[in-house]
Amino acid sequence: MALENGEKVEVALSEVAEAKPKKKDWVVLSLRVVAFLATASATIVMALNKQTKSFVVANVGTTPITATLAAKFNQTPAFVFFVVANANASLHNLVMIAMDVLGPQYDYKGLRLLFIAILDMMAMALASAGDGAATFMSELGKNGNSHARWDKICDKFQSYCNRSGAALVVSFIGFIILLIISVMSIIKLLKPNRINHASP
Amino acid sequence: MALENGEKVEVALSEVAEAKPKKKDWVVLSLRVVAFLATASATIVMALNKQTKSFVVANVGTTPITATLAAKFNQTPAFVFFVVANANASLHNLVMIAMDVLGPQYDYKGLRLLFIAILDMMAMALASAGDGAATFMSELGKNGNSHARWDKICDKFQSYCNRSGAALVVSFIGFIILLIISVMSIIKLLKPNRINHASP
Repeated sequence: MALENGEKVEVALSEVAEAKPKKKDWVVLSLRVVAFLATASATIVMALNKQTKSFVVANVGTTPITATLAAKFNQTPAFVFFVVANANASLHNLVMIAMDVLGPQYDYKGLRLLFIAILDMMAMALASAGDGAATFMSELGKNGNSHARWDKICDKFQSYCNRSGAALVVSFIGFIILLIISVMSIIKLLKPNRINHASP
Repeated sequence: MALENGEKVEVALSEVAEAKPKKKDWVVLSLRVVAFLATASATIVMALNKQTKSFVVANVGTTPITATLAAKFNQTPAFVFFVVANANASLHNLVMIAMDVLGPQYDYKGLRLLFIAILDMMAMALASAGDGAATFMSELGKNGNSHARWDKICDKFQSYCNRSGAALVVSFIGFIILLIISVMSIIKLLKPNRINHASP
């Protein structure tokens, strides 16, 4: 009788485990897809951002002498960090989507949700730092800083600045979604239908 | 009999709730104190950071004409954001320490630990953005950026730069501790001695 009871509990547990992949969390999955698209496009737009422009530096008689200058994202360390942070967030969400699609068979002592919550938080924190760095560097490029005698450069490299701004906006959207996902991942740890909770 | 059982469960639950403040989590509490001290000193050092220096701008005969320039943290938006982010982290940890000392009587449906985990994450994310912004702005002040023709200013305002660097280092320490606290807050949600878990 006692053994039968034990078996019953085991069956119930495996039912819980098997019932999970069927009712996929479509909200989180679709949020992850949107976050991936946002951070991936921010990465690509920023990484391909380059503007070449010729300036007249002097006039010899009536012949203007021009110098060609290029503005590229990798000239600004903050933008390189931005690209790394957003690429990391994209990769993270891609792996998480893959894990969700493959199902929760990759579990270790029911700590899968815990690892996901912690990894979500880490990716979000890195994206936050990247966005912070790139935002204030862009602000400097746009407005300059008269105290430090740093002139604005956006009047010269307008389309470079516009593309940087677009990358920032898209990255912000990705970050906010990543923040929402992180909160949802933490809330999931509380849910009573977690495998951990089912065990006595 | 059924009623008695119900009473027994209730007593057991309140025992769990009352047993908690006795075995305080000293590790997290001391980490919070260290994190508070680190972010608070980063806030103060940066907010009081000011250097006034006189430069010789011209010579009239043998009389040098000097101009006095001041470097202050509020001239750089990234440093203002850094101060706000670190002040927020300090305040957050102070409130959390107070809540821990006052005990868990301030609970709402057993969701106290959830709120703490989410708030920890938010404070950590903001500190991350502040550190990211200030770090890259300091790097610019130290090395300059020849592509954008932004000259370094640390050769002129050396002690200003040194104090900024000290604030950054202390803030990093605070951030790393905040990250550890956030992970521990998430792990706590899993522990079986949580009030939520005790309920069937």
